[in-house]
Amino acid sequence: MNRTYIQNVKPGKVKIQGFIENLRNKKSMAFLVVRDLTGKIQVTVEKAALPHIAEVVDELSLDSVVTVEGEAVASEYVKLGGIEILPTSIQIESKAAALPIQEGAAIDSRLDFRWIDLRSEKNALMIKAQTCMVARMRQFLLEHDFLEIHTPKIIGAASESGSDVFKLNYFDRDAYLAQSPQFYKQMAMASGLERIFEVGPVFRAEKSYTSKHTTEFTGFDLEMSYIDSFEDVMAFEEDMLTDMLAGVKEKYGEKIKALFGIEVIVPKKPFPRMSLAEIYRELEARYGYTCPLSEQGDLTTEAEKLTYKLSKDMFDHEFLFVTDFAAEKRAFYHMRKDGKPQGYDLIWRGVEITTGAQREHRYDVLLAQAAEKGLGKDIEFYTEFFRYGCPPHGGFGLGVDRMTMLLLGLSIKESMFIFRGPDRLNP
Amino acid sequence: MNRTYIQNVKPGKVKIQGFIENLRNKKSMAFLVVRDLTGKIQVTVEKAALPHIAEVVDELSLDSVVTVEGEAVASEYVKLGGIEILPTSIQIESKAAALPIQEGAAIDSRLDFRWIDLRSEKNALMIKAQTCMVARMRQFLLEHDFLEIHTPKIIGAASESGSDVFKLNYFDRDAYLAQSPQFYKQMAMASGLERIFEVGPVFRAEKSYTSKHTTEFTGFDLEMSYIDSFEDVMAFEEDMLTDMLAGVKEKYGEKIKALFGIEVIVPKKPFPRMSLAEIYRELEARYGYTCPLSEQGDLTTEAEKLTYKLSKDMFDHEFLFVTDFAAEKRAFYHMRKDGKPQGYDLIWRGVEITTGAQREHRYDVLLAQAAEKGLGKDIEFYTEFFRYGCPPHGGFGLGVDRMTMLLLGLSIKESMFIFRGPDRLNP
Repeated sequence: MNRTYIQNVKPGKVKIQGFIENLRNKKSMAFLVVRDLTGKIQVTVEKAALPHIAEVVDELSLDSVVTVEGEAVASEYVKLGGIEILPTSIQIESKAAALPIQEGAAIDSRLDFRWIDLRSEKNALMIKAQTCMVARMRQFLLEHDFLEIHTPKIIGAASESGSDVFKLNYFDRDAYLAQSPQFYKQMAMASGLERIFEVGPVFRAEKSYTSKHTTEFTGFDLEMSYIDSFEDVMAFEEDMLTDMLAGVKEKYGEKIKALFGIEVIVPKKPFPRMSLAEIYRELEARYGYTCPLSEQGDLTTEAEKLTYKLSKDMFDHEFLFVTDFAAEKRAFYHMRKDGKPQGYDLIWRGVEITTGAQREHRYDVLLAQAAEKGLGKDIEFYTEFFRYGCPPHGGFGLGVDRMTMLLLGLSIKESMFIFRGPDRLNP
Repeated sequence: MNRTYIQNVKPGKVKIQGFIENLRNKKSMAFLVVRDLTGKIQVTVEKAALPHIAEVVDELSLDSVVTVEGEAVASEYVKLGGIEILPTSIQIESKAAALPIQEGAAIDSRLDFRWIDLRSEKNALMIKAQTCMVARMRQFLLEHDFLEIHTPKIIGAASESGSDVFKLNYFDRDAYLAQSPQFYKQMAMASGLERIFEVGPVFRAEKSYTSKHTTEFTGFDLEMSYIDSFEDVMAFEEDMLTDMLAGVKEKYGEKIKALFGIEVIVPKKPFPRMSLAEIYRELEARYGYTCPLSEQGDLTTEAEKLTYKLSKDMFDHEFLFVTDFAAEKRAFYHMRKDGKPQGYDLIWRGVEITTGAQREHRYDVLLAQAAEKGLGKDIEFYTEFFRYGCPPHGGFGLGVDRMTMLLLGLSIKESMFIFRGPDRLNP
């Protein structure tokens, strides 16, 4: 007999499979609640009439996995969907030891036993929403002529800077873990692949203990050739994100609202755009926030948070493109025009989710900008990419986990399958 | 003016962008061939009439990147598509230095300058076909209720064995790079996620210098709960691969035939299945191949190659499922029945592409099988996953690069964006 997902059970003969969510084993009756990825259902056992099943029920423990066959019947006494299963057999597939964590356990215990923690309805929805988010963005890119690449994560030279990089033993030499696919996705532009994306792990050896940092996360990166300016990149990103959020809202909007109390909002286009200077002007005028003079070329953490309110107040919008950062605060490979970096940050709900830019593709200009930042030999393997012809191009990267975090109002630790931090390498 | 892909150019005003593929700069005329990702087209310059363009042409070098605007006109003298562009402007976006490699260069030089090597039509098709392959399989999984996970690549304990694992410095302790997502995709089953997949890098510290080994490649892994036996896994895999090959054939079959001389064959279902003993019996009877007694529990490399011919001869099929390996040759986590591992290898064109199996999900049996292989403390983090309830499950993994290699008849070095081997960490 084929298995039926619990959400699809209708009166009649049925076979379901799942975890024991709840267990009330009384003298003459037993009530089990079985949970699969789609829902929960009550299994009601009249023990006297079914001694062989009663024996199995006596063996059961919470979160054991069972296969139940029987008759599903409508029942006005059953709260759970108004339906119950009267079993003809219950088979224990896996018997669970007493659970080491309970609902509401502290986050560190939950992470220690992440495989149990992930069984909750909220966490399953987190993974479902993340799947939908990534699938939708990827689909959007495939429909726009993007190719998928898989760039190496083990690299021969520490990229942008020597710090924050994990070092490893590669046979008889040192190697490093890629902090981003930046250099390689630009290499793909020099290869004439024109439009590429990659979804893959990126590694940051940062000793940061914030609610939004992790040492390993999933990057969603793309790069596109033959743009006219970084405005093309911004326009593309807002199209992609709007399409993604429409997809997530359609599929999971109601459930996210019910379980996380958060509305999935499909943004209006175009997203608002403000220069850094404008933002500081408005933050001062509206909320009395003054940015320290020394930090005015960049967005401070506090200003970043405040932009959520600012964008809501000024534009009734959750997103905000920020432009006109100071050149000394941006990477050497951002193209500049009259000294201004041709790039942007995108803020969603007060958190930076993207840095995007047109890149400098002209070999001589790139060398000069690298030298200005004191970068030389270490990045020579990268600057070589631009020596034998390369189209003008730009792109951006998103953190999948951070997007999930913002979508559902979680911390980063709760927004990924398994969190990695400076003190956490398990499970 | 918007850019037109070269394959879409029709008579009329047009703007194209691409690399200079060919350059004949004569006294009164210049003929350029410009290449983008979709095709090639001739740009014809009458130099006397267009002195400002003639000046630009004198500056050009092979593989420089240009933007050309002008009038596309039909021409019976032009071989390339019967169309040429008479330019009104040519702009150099990026000037290329003299190319360090030529067509037909040795593989090592080509890999040194991979970004130039990838510009060839064959290599672009390789990336396109790989994109299509992965996208199609992923789509198939999403349509079959699979969720996508991203498992950690930095792990606290060397997995299956201590050898062949890259070690890294993780703040003040040792860590390792994941050899496969095996343990974590099984963790997802214990988490009740039921059906999951992952596409991501896997790392093997093997000093192998064969045409099919690499130290870093892209794994395509899936795992599914509530299977009845490993037959369910095999049936699912043949459905997925058949769908994928149909998609690749439809989109790129003709081009693959033209550029690589290889037919994309959509396999018939079910794929043939043979036990190891049957294979050795047939190899002996048909081709006189005798497997050394000591190796009869596993498929030897030579036998693996011969199965291509065998499957063709016996079943007119490119694939072959091989079952009934010896327990001592299979991983401890494969379920056994009467001592027989409940798993298989799948061979395509004489090369193993998959090991699949039903996994042992019963905690006590799993512990016993691990102990038998001498595995204890190191894998305790993994065996714990099965202690608190876990559905029966199985799955398999594919190597994206190896699949690409077999699809196109290449070596592994040519089948990935950037190859990594014991002696190769660049670019």
